[in-house]
This record gives sequence, structure tokens and C-alpha cells, in this order.
Amino acid sequence: MDGGPVLSSLDLAAMNESEVSPLSLNRLSLYLRCLRQLEIEGVSRISSKLLAERFHLSAALIRKDLAQFGEFGIRGIGYEVKPLIERLNEVLGLDREHRLIVVGMGHLGVALARYLEFNQGSFKVVAGLDIDPKKVGHQVGHLTIRHFNEVADIVDETEADIALLTVPPEDAQTICDRLTGAGVRAILNFAPVQLAVETAIPTKSVDVRIHLEELAYFLRT
Amino acid sequence: MDGGPVLSSLDLAAMNESEVSPLSLNRLSLYLRCLRQLEIEGVSRISSKLLAERFHLSAALIRKDLAQFGEFGIRGIGYEVKPLIERLNEVLGLDREHRLIVVGMGHLGVALARYLEFNQGSFKVVAGLDIDPKKVGHQVGHLTIRHFNEVADIVDETEADIALLTVPPEDAQTICDRLTGAGVRAILNFAPVQLAVETAIPTKSVDVRIHLEELAYFLRT
Repeated sequence: MDGGPVLSSLDLAAMNESEVSPLSLNRLSLYLRCLRQLEIEGVSRISSKLLAERFHLSAALIRKDLAQFGEFGIRGIGYEVKPLIERLNEVLGLDREHRLIVVGMGHLGVALARYLEFNQGSFKVVAGLDIDPKKVGHQVGHLTIRHFNEVADIVDETEADIALLTVPPEDAQTICDRLTGAGVRAILNFAPVQLAVETAIPTKSVDVRIHLEELAYFLRT
Repeated sequence: MDGGPVLSSLDLAAMNESEVSPLSLNRLSLYLRCLRQLEIEGVSRISSKLLAERFHLSAALIRKDLAQFGEFGIRGIGYEVKPLIERLNEVLGLDREHRLIVVGMGHLGVALARYLEFNQGSFKVVAGLDIDPKKVGHQVGHLTIRHFNEVADIVDETEADIALLTVPPEDAQTICDRLTGAGVRAILNFAPVQLAVETAIPTKSVDVRIHLEELAYFLRT
């Protein structure tokens, strides 16, 4: 059970306290995306009201969320887009590059590797790993698939800090433990299983069924 | 901007009010998964304390979340696993089958179709659609890929209620509008773009980058 709380605090937003709540983090990330869009469009300044209207958000919540990190807005004028982007990048730890490995190069692993290849930003996929010898050596975009047995060397030489876990649920825990042992610092888990990470590294699960069940709730009638 | 609030209330948990908060829905879905695991293991009754310990959850929050839907627990004894599963299935609208179409049969679309084929439960993938004539007619598991131009007929004949949207971001809005027009009742969007659904159907976005950014926050130091 040791190390569980870190898992839970991320997986189950708001179950535990952290500096910034996972829910609020999630929104900061979304604001950042909206602001980047505005920057591309040449908008240099925007009020919380217009930002809210443009992206279907709540102006009050925008002001509350952003106020946590200092005074970004000027009353009656609004937010300066570019400085706010920079500050949010800092707050979210996006002012440095994160190096990702994808573990499990099935359809989902390949989809994620390709997606992140074209949407890099602060995240760079540096390796794709699989245990299937038939896959090892194959090319996916700019990556050559390598064998999972080499994971310690791969993490070492690529300085990977985040692993995307796209393996069958029954293998997820073992592989998660080996990734932690190899020095990976955080795991984004796509296997439909609740991980118990022994060492306290941040782990977050993306479970498609949970999202579907949430939608199903709105279709009850 | 019409119809935006529904989108926002799901995409941005807690920004708007709904019967059950999206965050709480999310947890109900997770409890259900844990209870199903216990049922497989032959556990017929469990206290909130043991449930919390076993799955790295908060006992207090479990009690609070479940209390919203009536008295499931017996003080000093705990929850009856099977009746609680049935009740949560009802609450979440999982006591009937949902029929899904996957729109965009690239790597991600194929991964989702295959994943849901082996993890059906209440969700059944009934069609895979693409606009690429080279893909149309190809077999993915038990599905034959069909052309997106037939979407209205396909939704009609399969009685699909949920669409999984795995198309390029620049096409997402147009396709979303066509899906809504074709009678789809909810959309799970994997394109990294903020959708503005004209008619008020529930839409939820799964954005890998937001999850990565959340993990990056914990790696700032």
C-alpha cells in the first residue's frame, strides 16, 4: 500500500491535497492551450470575460485559478497573452523538455508515438519499446522499436523521464515496477488497471471506459 | 456559443453544476471497476475502510459519494458487493447497451475499436468509419470499415448513440457537426481541439497532452 497515495491523488482528483489540485492543474493546461491559440491569431491581450466566452469557460473560475500564481491580469484591461503563457509554462514545468518512452508498441502505442511526434511542444518521444521480437527493429516515424529488456539502458541513454504504458492489463504492474526501477520519474498508464506503484512516482491513468461511462450517465433517459 | 455549457460542464469538471458532478461520476465509475474486481474474487461484502485500503482510495469520500444514491452500506458491516454493482450500473446508465461508432480508423481508431471489442461490457463498437477510400472495406476485428459519407445511414441502422472521434484536429468540428446531425447522442473526442457543439449533446474530450502536462507539473524540480 506504500506509495499508493501519490497514485490516488492523481488518479482520483481531489482525493488528496497537493500544492495545486489536479482539477485546477487540468484547467491551467486547458487555459494554456486556449492562450496559445490566441497567440497564433495575433491576440496580445484578452479579458477573462472574452476568454471565457471564446472557449466556453467560466470567467470567475479563470480569475480564481490564475490568481493562485500571482497577478496576471490588469483590472479593466485583461491578461497579457504572451507573459501569461510564459508564466503558465513555468508553473506547469513546461519550460523544459520532457523525454518520453512508449512501452507497448501495439496500435495504441504507435498512435501515441505518431501523435506526439507531430505535437511535440515540451514532450519528445525518444523511444518505443516492446517485448515482441517481431516488432523490435521496426521503424515508427523517426523511432526504431527496441526490446523492453533493454529498458534500463534506454532510460539511461535517452534520459527519459516519463513512460507511456500501453501494455495488456495483466502485464501492467510488472512493467510499471521495472520502469520505476529503471529510473523513469512518472507514468501515464493506458492499461485498464489500477496500478500500485511501490516507489512514490506520480502515475496517472487514462481509462477510456471511465470516460464512456461518464457520457453514458447523460444518456440514461 | 449555444450549447457550449454542456460541453464545458463535462470537459471542465466542476465548471458548471449538473446532477452529479463529473468528478464524482468519475469516481463512481472507478468504484464500480473495483467492485467488479472484488466480485470476480468472490468477495460478497466489504467495508468502506477495506475498499479504500485495497484500491488506494479515501474511505470518507467513498461513503460520501455513495450516500448520494441512497443507503447502500450497513453500519459496522459494509457494502453488499453485488447489489451495489447493480445500483451503480443503474445510476451510471450502464444497465443498457451503448452502441459506439469509431470515426477515423487511423492507429488510434483501430486501437480503440480493438480495445473495446475485448472489453465490451455495456459498450459495443458497431461500426468503424473513415473518409479514406483505401481504408473502406478493410476488416478490423469483427468490423468492416465503412465510408464516412454513409454516416446518417450507419447511425440509423446500427442505432449508435456514442461516437468516438479520432480524426485530425482541423476536421474535428465539421465531423462533429455531421455526427450530431446524423443523430449521435454523445461524442468522446480524441482530437486535440476544443469542440463547440451547436446542439446540446454531451461531449467529452480526452487529451493526452493535458495528462502529460499534469505529470510534468510533478517533475518541476
